[in-house]
Amino acid sequence: MNGADLLCETLLANDVDVCFANPGTSEMHFVAALDRQPRMRCVLGLFEGVVTGAADGYARMADKPAATLLHLGPGLANGLANLHNARRARTPMVNIVGDHATYHLQYDAPLTSDIESLARPMSHWVERADTADAVGTRTEEAIRVARAQPGQIATLILHADAAWNDVTSDAMPSPIEIASPNKPDAVRIRDAAAALRNGRTTTILVSGKALREGELETLDRIAQRTGARLMAQQSNGRMQRGAGRVVLDRVPYVIDLAVAAFADTEQVILIAANAPVGFFAYPGKPSSMLPEGCTTFDLTEPGQDVAAAIAALAGEVGVGEARPKLAPRHRPDMPAGALTKEAIAIALALHMPANAVVCDESVSSGRDFFRYTYGAEPHDFLQLTGGAIGIGLPLATGAAIACPDRKVVALQADGSGMYTVQALWTQARERLDVVTIIFANRRYQILHGELKNVGAGAPGENASRMLDLVDPALDWVGLAAAMGVEGARAESAEQFSDLLRAACGRKGPFLIEAMI
Amino acid sequence: MNGADLLCETLLANDVDVCFANPGTSEMHFVAALDRQPRMRCVLGLFEGVVTGAADGYARMADKPAATLLHLGPGLANGLANLHNARRARTPMVNIVGDHATYHLQYDAPLTSDIESLARPMSHWVERADTADAVGTRTEEAIRVARAQPGQIATLILHADAAWNDVTSDAMPSPIEIASPNKPDAVRIRDAAAALRNGRTTTILVSGKALREGELETLDRIAQRTGARLMAQQSNGRMQRGAGRVVLDRVPYVIDLAVAAFADTEQVILIAANAPVGFFAYPGKPSSMLPEGCTTFDLTEPGQDVAAAIAALAGEVGVGEARPKLAPRHRPDMPAGALTKEAIAIALALHMPANAVVCDESVSSGRDFFRYTYGAEPHDFLQLTGGAIGIGLPLATGAAIACPDRKVVALQADGSGMYTVQALWTQARERLDVVTIIFANRRYQILHGELKNVGAGAPGENASRMLDLVDPALDWVGLAAAMGVEGARAESAEQFSDLLRAACGRKGPFLIEAMI
Repeated sequence: MNGADLLCETLLANDVDVCFANPGTSEMHFVAALDRQPRMRCVLGLFEGVVTGAADGYARMADKPAATLLHLGPGLANGLANLHNARRARTPMVNIVGDHATYHLQYDAPLTSDIESLARPMSHWVERADTADAVGTRTEEAIRVARAQPGQIATLILHADAAWNDVTSDAMPSPIEIASPNKPDAVRIRDAAAALRNGRTTTILVSGKALREGELETLDRIAQRTGARLMAQQSNGRMQRGAGRVVLDRVPYVIDLAVAAFADTEQVILIAANAPVGFFAYPGKPSSMLPEGCTTFDLTEPGQDVAAAIAALAGEVGVGEARPKLAPRHRPDMPAGALTKEAIAIALALHMPANAVVCDESVSSGRDFFRYTYGAEPHDFLQLTGGAIGIGLPLATGAAIACPDRKVVALQADGSGMYTVQALWTQARERLDVVTIIFANRRYQILHGELKNVGAGAPGENASRMLDLVDPALDWVGLAAAMGVEGARAESAEQFSDLLRAACGRKGPFLIEAMI
Repeated sequence: MNGADLLCETLLANDVDVCFANPGTSEMHFVAALDRQPRMRCVLGLFEGVVTGAADGYARMADKPAATLLHLGPGLANGLANLHNARRARTPMVNIVGDHATYHLQYDAPLTSDIESLARPMSHWVERADTADAVGTRTEEAIRVARAQPGQIATLILHADAAWNDVTSDAMPSPIEIASPNKPDAVRIRDAAAALRNGRTTTILVSGKALREGELETLDRIAQRTGARLMAQQSNGRMQRGAGRVVLDRVPYVIDLAVAAFADTEQVILIAANAPVGFFAYPGKPSSMLPEGCTTFDLTEPGQDVAAAIAALAGEVGVGEARPKLAPRHRPDMPAGALTKEAIAIALALHMPANAVVCDESVSSGRDFFRYTYGAEPHDFLQLTGGAIGIGLPLATGAAIACPDRKVVALQADGSGMYTVQALWTQARERLDVVTIIFANRRYQILHGELKNVGAGAPGENASRMLDLVDPALDWVGLAAAMGVEGARAESAEQFSDLLRAACGRKGPFLIEAMI
C-alpha cells in the first residue's frame, strides 16, 4: 500500500466516496490508487471550477463532504472562485491538491508555485502530506475539519512522493470519530428568549441549517408567539421551501430595498446568519443594512448545534399551541405571448416536480422566481453564496450526483453561465437529471444597472463592449449540443412552458435557452 | 477627474492602450472612465482566464504590457493560472483588480477575500491604491515594475472609493521614464568567453530575448566559433524561427531524452534561461537534467540587457567571418490518407504564411510541429511556459490583437482547449485573424503516458473516466459555431491540408477540428 492508496482508503473509511477530479501528472499515483478502488466514484470536470462547484453542490445536498482532486497551484487556482462560494455557504469539502515530490520543489520547475498562499483565503485549513505515512493522519484531520459544524473547507497538499512511497503499515484505516456539534449555550438561549419578550421590534434572521423544513416550522411558531419577524439571509447555501413549508422572505439584494426592510428593526437575532451588509459599497449609501442603534445577537456560536438551539429557544419561549403557517400549493396563471422573467418563474411554479433541487445563478434575471414559487411543489433552493459567478452549472451537476432521484433545475444567467460552461459535458457524461434554464438576455444585465447607479448615463462604445454579450450572440443550444446535452430555444411563454413541462417529465440533462 | 479617470490616463500616457477585461460592480467607475476615453481599446473576455492569457499573448508580441481588469479576489483567482504562465514567460503585465471601498472591507461582504494572498504567488509586485490621489503614483509604479527587464507581473488592487473619489489635481499625467536595461557585466562577459575557450563540452542554453532573430544569428556565430552547442530552453515565451533563421533545438520535454541530451555536457552557459530541470519528478529519476559535475554560468543578471550581452560576448569571443547557418525554405511532401500528428505538422510547414504567430498548446500532440517547421515560412513560436493548461486560445487571441496584420495559428490540444474555450467568442467579437487547430484525440493523452510511467498498467474504469474525453465526445466545430467562429472537421490528411490552406488564404477566425 502506498500513500495514494492510504489516502483513498482513509476517505472511503470515512464515507467520502465521491471524488470530483481533474488530475495531472503529479496526481497519477492517486489516479492509479482510485483505479484499484472502484468504490470511489470519480467524476471528471473539464475545468477545475466545475470540480469545486460540483463538490459544493454535492455536499449541500448530501450533507457530507466530497473530495476534489486538483493539479498543483494552477489547478487549485482555477477552482478557487467556487471554493470561495463554498466557504461562504459553509460547505464541507476535502480538497486534494497535488504538488511536486518534496525534493523536487527546490528546482523551481515550471509548475511550482506557493500553494499555501493560494489556498488559504478560501480554506479553513491547509496542510501538507510530505511522507506516505503522514497521509493517513493528515487525511483524517482534513475530514475532521471539513465535517465540523458548520462545514469547512480543508485543503490537503499531497506531495507526489508521499503518494508513491509505500507506507510502513498496511493496516486499513478505520473511521474516525466525528464529534457531535456542541450543545447550544443555555445562557444565549435564555438571553434570546428574553430579548424576544423585551418589546423591541425584532427580526430573526436565519441561514445555514436553520433553513431546513423542521427548523423553519419551529422558528415560524416562535415568531408567531413573540411577534418577531422571521427572515432569511440574502443568500443561502440551501433553503427548504414551497407548498407545505413555511413562507419565508429573504433580505433584498438591492441596497435601498434592504435598508428599507430593516428601517423599523430595533434588534436582530441571528441564527447561523450574518448581520446584513451591502453586497458592495456605493457612494453615499451605508455598508450596514441595519438602522442606527439596532442591536444584533447570535443565538449560537460556531460549532454549536443550530437545530438543538432552535428547539431550546422554542421551549424557552413556550410556543404552545402555535401551528406553523405553511404555504398552500398555488398554481399561478401561465401568461401567454412574450417570454418574460415572470413567465419563466410562473412556468417553474407550475411544472417543477416535487422535491426538485433548484440551483440559482440567475443573478438579476431570476429575482421573480422566489415570489412566484412560495406555493410551488416543495423544493430545495441553493444559491450563489459568495458572489463569485460561475457556480450555477457546476452546483447543479454536484447536486444531481448527490440526489439521483430528484429533478435538478439550474436557473442560469447567460453571462455567468459561460464561466464554467464545461459543466454541461459532465452532466451528459454522468447522465444527470438536470434541466438548465439559460436566461439569455445577452448582457451582464446587473452591470447595466450598476453603471447607471454610478451616474455614468447611457453606456458608450467601451462600456457597451464590456457589458453586452452580442456581436456575436451566443448560441446556448449549440453549446449544449456540442457537449452532448440536448436542448431547445424558447421564444414565447407558451414555448417555454411546453419545453419545461416536457423536460420535467423525462430524465436526463436538457437545456432551455430562454430568450428574454 | 476621479481616481478611475486618473488610472486610465496614466495607463494611456505610458502607452498601455489595450485593456483586456471582465469587470464587475466594484469596477464600474473604471468602466465609466474607460467609456469617457475611447483611446483605450477594451477587449472583453467571457472568463478571466481568457483575459490574462490574452494579455500575455498581446505583450509577448507587442513587447509592451497590456492592462487587465479583474473583479475582486475571485475574478483574479480565475485569471491566476494564465498569470502563472505569463510570470514564467517573463511577460510584462499590469493587472487592475477591483476591491471593495476601503471602509466596506471590515463588513466582510460576500465577495471579500484576501486578494494579496491570492495575487502574490503569480505577481512580482502587489500594491493597493486606497485613495484617489494614490492611484496615479501606484499606477506609475505598476507600469515601471511591469516594464523592467525581463518583464514582470504587477498587480494593483484598486479600492472602489479610490476609483470614485475626485483627485485633488486635474493635471494630466505625463509619461514616466522607463529605465533602460542595465548594461551587461563586463566580468561576466569575459568569464563566459573564457569558459567558451576552456575546452570543456559546452551548451549555450537560451531563452527570453535571446530568441529573437538577430540575437540568434549572433549566438549561432559564437557557437560556430567556439564549438559550443546552442540550444533553447524547453519552453519559451517567444522564439523566432523558420526559413532564413537559425535552426535551433529545444531541451526535450520527456525526461529520459532531456537527460540524454545533456549526458556529455560539461558546462552550460545560460542566457536568459534556467538550468534544465524535470517538469515533474519521477521515482528513481533525477530532478536536474545535467550530469554530475556539470557547471552552469549565467551570462546576465536579471535586469541586464540580454541583446547587448550577446553582442558583447560575440565581440569578446571574436566571431570574425563566421556566417550564421540559416534554415532554407523547405517544403516536405504532404502525406495522403490518415490524419496523423505528422500530417498536421507537414501541412503547417507547407501552408503557414510568412510571419505567422504560432501559439502552441498542443501538449503531447504537437511535438512533431517543431521538427517539420525549421524550414517553414519565418514565424514566431509562443509556448505554454508555466505548464498551467488553458493558455492556447487566449494566447492566440491576445497575439492577434497585437499583430492585426499577421496570421495567428493556435495549435490546441482538445483537453486543455476546454479550459478557456470562451476565448473563441472574443476572437469572433474582435474579428481576429486566428486559425485554431484542435488536436482532437479525445483524451488527456499526456496523462495516459504518465499513468503508464507510474507502472499502473492499462487504465481501468476509474482511471479511464478521468483520462478520456469520450462518452460524450466533444464537437469542437459545434462549440466554435455556437460562439460565432466558423469551423470544419478534418478526417484525412487531404482534408486537413485543404482546410488549412483555405483558412490561411482568408482573414478572420476559423477552427479546424483535426480528428487524430
